[in-house]
Amino acid sequence: MKGTPSASYSLTIRLKIRRGGVGLHTVLETIATAGGDTDGIDKPGSDNEFVTRDITVLLRNSEHGEEVVRLLTALPDVEVQHVSDRTFLMHLGGKIDIVPRREVKTRDDLSMIYTPGVARVCKAIAADPSKASSLTMKGNMVAVISDGSRVLSLGDIGPLAGLPVMEGKAVLFKRFGGVNAFPLVIDAHDPEEIIKVIKAVAPGFSAINLEDIASPGCYIIEDRLRDELDIPVFHDDQHATAIVVLAATINAAKLTRKQLRNLKVVVSGVGAAGMACCKLLLAAGVRNLIGYNIGGAIHKGRTGLTAQEQWLAEHSNPKQFTGSMQEALKGADMFLGLSVAGVIKAEDLAVMRRDPIVFALANPDPEVSPLEAKPYVRVMATGGSDYPNQINNALVFPGIFAGAIEARVPNITDEMKMEAARALAAVITADEREEDYIIPSVFDPRAHKAVAEAVIRVAQRTGQARRIRTSTKS
Amino acid sequence: MKGTPSASYSLTIRLKIRRGGVGLHTVLETIATAGGDTDGIDKPGSDNEFVTRDITVLLRNSEHGEEVVRLLTALPDVEVQHVSDRTFLMHLGGKIDIVPRREVKTRDDLSMIYTPGVARVCKAIAADPSKASSLTMKGNMVAVISDGSRVLSLGDIGPLAGLPVMEGKAVLFKRFGGVNAFPLVIDAHDPEEIIKVIKAVAPGFSAINLEDIASPGCYIIEDRLRDELDIPVFHDDQHATAIVVLAATINAAKLTRKQLRNLKVVVSGVGAAGMACCKLLLAAGVRNLIGYNIGGAIHKGRTGLTAQEQWLAEHSNPKQFTGSMQEALKGADMFLGLSVAGVIKAEDLAVMRRDPIVFALANPDPEVSPLEAKPYVRVMATGGSDYPNQINNALVFPGIFAGAIEARVPNITDEMKMEAARALAAVITADEREEDYIIPSVFDPRAHKAVAEAVIRVAQRTGQARRIRTSTKS
Repeated sequence: MKGTPSASYSLTIRLKIRRGGVGLHTVLETIATAGGDTDGIDKPGSDNEFVTRDITVLLRNSEHGEEVVRLLTALPDVEVQHVSDRTFLMHLGGKIDIVPRREVKTRDDLSMIYTPGVARVCKAIAADPSKASSLTMKGNMVAVISDGSRVLSLGDIGPLAGLPVMEGKAVLFKRFGGVNAFPLVIDAHDPEEIIKVIKAVAPGFSAINLEDIASPGCYIIEDRLRDELDIPVFHDDQHATAIVVLAATINAAKLTRKQLRNLKVVVSGVGAAGMACCKLLLAAGVRNLIGYNIGGAIHKGRTGLTAQEQWLAEHSNPKQFTGSMQEALKGADMFLGLSVAGVIKAEDLAVMRRDPIVFALANPDPEVSPLEAKPYVRVMATGGSDYPNQINNALVFPGIFAGAIEARVPNITDEMKMEAARALAAVITADEREEDYIIPSVFDPRAHKAVAEAVIRVAQRTGQARRIRTSTKS
Repeated sequence: MKGTPSASYSLTIRLKIRRGGVGLHTVLETIATAGGDTDGIDKPGSDNEFVTRDITVLLRNSEHGEEVVRLLTALPDVEVQHVSDRTFLMHLGGKIDIVPRREVKTRDDLSMIYTPGVARVCKAIAADPSKASSLTMKGNMVAVISDGSRVLSLGDIGPLAGLPVMEGKAVLFKRFGGVNAFPLVIDAHDPEEIIKVIKAVAPGFSAINLEDIASPGCYIIEDRLRDELDIPVFHDDQHATAIVVLAATINAAKLTRKQLRNLKVVVSGVGAAGMACCKLLLAAGVRNLIGYNIGGAIHKGRTGLTAQEQWLAEHSNPKQFTGSMQEALKGADMFLGLSVAGVIKAEDLAVMRRDPIVFALANPDPEVSPLEAKPYVRVMATGGSDYPNQINNALVFPGIFAGAIEARVPNITDEMKMEAARALAAVITADEREEDYIIPSVFDPRAHKAVAEAVIRVAQRTGQARRIRTSTKS
């Protein structure tokens, strides 16, 4: 049974425990013996015969939960009354609400926010469309758009089933970036059709966050929309991942006294996210990078490459290495995995150069187990929260969009991404930096502020800001 | 200069008034003499030489505001420092925010509302799409959709300029119906294209509110979407107007002891809203109804009628009256205007039957001035808030959607509209009913509750409810 008990698999189990019977102690022992982690105990009621208990248990996965419930049901003097799944309870009624920014208490309020007063605001915008950025929600509203074609590790589950992720995203936008975001799932599959829909709804938004769209659709859609819309379009899976990876790489290199330009990096998985990471690492100065897909090393001599892979072949792997990934790891400084669990063994890492850096970002299970890799690795990062150095997109997208909206840029440029990565890395000072702390926590407000400020700084320096900040509003 | 001073044209004027000079009294007198209505006076500061005052003044229109500011500027010992328009201030930053329904304080929260926990919720919906109604925002989210082709009385000002109206609508949905609503403006003009966009984004919503779409597009779009989507689609301009008009008609008839089936009704304007009113009045029992458009009375013998007008010709005007509107008013019980100011004169009403009922709903200026019509009319209603009996859509759409969502109906049927109108009328008891009170205020919570309950009642009675209410949750 994989994984450690976590809140995302937790149950609240209501038990009636007969007085004078096996008692609470046996219940807790049963849970612990089965590997469950008791997170809280409430006592909603009792009578002469029974004590009712709500016990919240962290579990490894759904099957683990079923096992614990079965064991508790089998106990004498214990009756399982109800099992509620905390994750599902958190989703009841959805995760976002839309609220008026101002109270509507009087007829006067009504006549200003609605008819007849609103007509003057409409006329002002019709006369000067740029006024919409200050007089409507457009000024601070991101569309989180997905067709549900590649949701998390679940694949093409469609727009409706993808909606909980997009809502989660909207929550994170507000929580970490102060940005309004609305989840818009699209029931269309042809990229051309998706482009049409997004262009049609674009007027009400200040930016578009593309999310969980399968390749090659994600490239086609992003490229076209970047050309045809005058608001930023950002495919989070690609670019936010790349920014966090670069930030973590910068700090890992500092810690191990390595230079990006001398780093040998082996990349497993050059899908949308992997490719974006490669591009940003190369742009940041990495030269010796070898990317792998299921067919082996990406190099100029290979045939059947996609346009993206062809680009990579031409801009990486300077020695045209064609061997296996295990062979490539020999003398490598860094392994970056954006593929699946099991593509390498921990022992494969033994051939890396001194102070190996390993980012194993496959979800939910990393390419290599951090515990098993530990003897071979100096700096380790994963995509999960159950290990230090979590490479989490949520460190980046709230600040990226907050900055882009604040400066009203038409595009999020490579220079903004680069500066955002450097700023994110710099959140951790030289004193703080250590093997288990190369990237800040998503709950660190400095991280989001640094990212947003970086975008604004580049926008102003390069003349791409359509609004110059005049106040010190944060 | 038309109109009475109102909050929707109000300015807050900051003045520095020199001590020992003309004084505040002269300032207020100047405003009053110019016809402005002083609504509030604040004193944000003062020193030995000056007193600073913020004076909020209700005005008739923009020009009136400019005149008052000019007169104040001309006063000795008074300096106009700043003029701010309250309606525009109310719009700054937009009128809605998107907020998380639950706090995200810990990594555990994050792992439940987002990855990895969210994946289980996605899987549950992929396996059973009906679960989206309880586990995502879809369960309580209306899309307020417009192409901006007929915004208020402003005409085709486009999606961006229409956005403040849609945002206002979202505010009213929440304020009066407890319903989440998101404004989605569409940059497309061909009805087929608009239909495609709405169908593509429909999965995330529990209902579609079409708004400010010009005819015939509004008919085409509504008809098609009602057929092709399994969630309610409602063109507010048509149906909400019709429901309020019918409710007001029911109470006006009761007050004047008239029967709907004997009522002679003359309708000026059979556009989208006018046509919907005619249909609902006819369905409610009115038989002698004569509709007018710019070409005269709608009757079977007329050529060049639209499909809608042809329907009306066949179902109204039983005597095939072909004379002018002024002639039709002879012996009429009710005049219903959904056209423009000035189509009739007050004196035209003198020929109506005893206890004339006049609903002059043109916006912003009614077909006939209530003041001028007063000698000829027993019951008067308008679309504005500056006169009793305001026929306001906001009385209806929040409750209609709240009820439709609660019962998860696939459609809002004519029977639901009829029952909603009757319930809205019944909010005013026999004791309360009088000439100036045939329709409740939009701030009357009984109104919205009655409308929502009516929809749920019909849904359950007719087997259209996909969810039966089990609790007494209101």
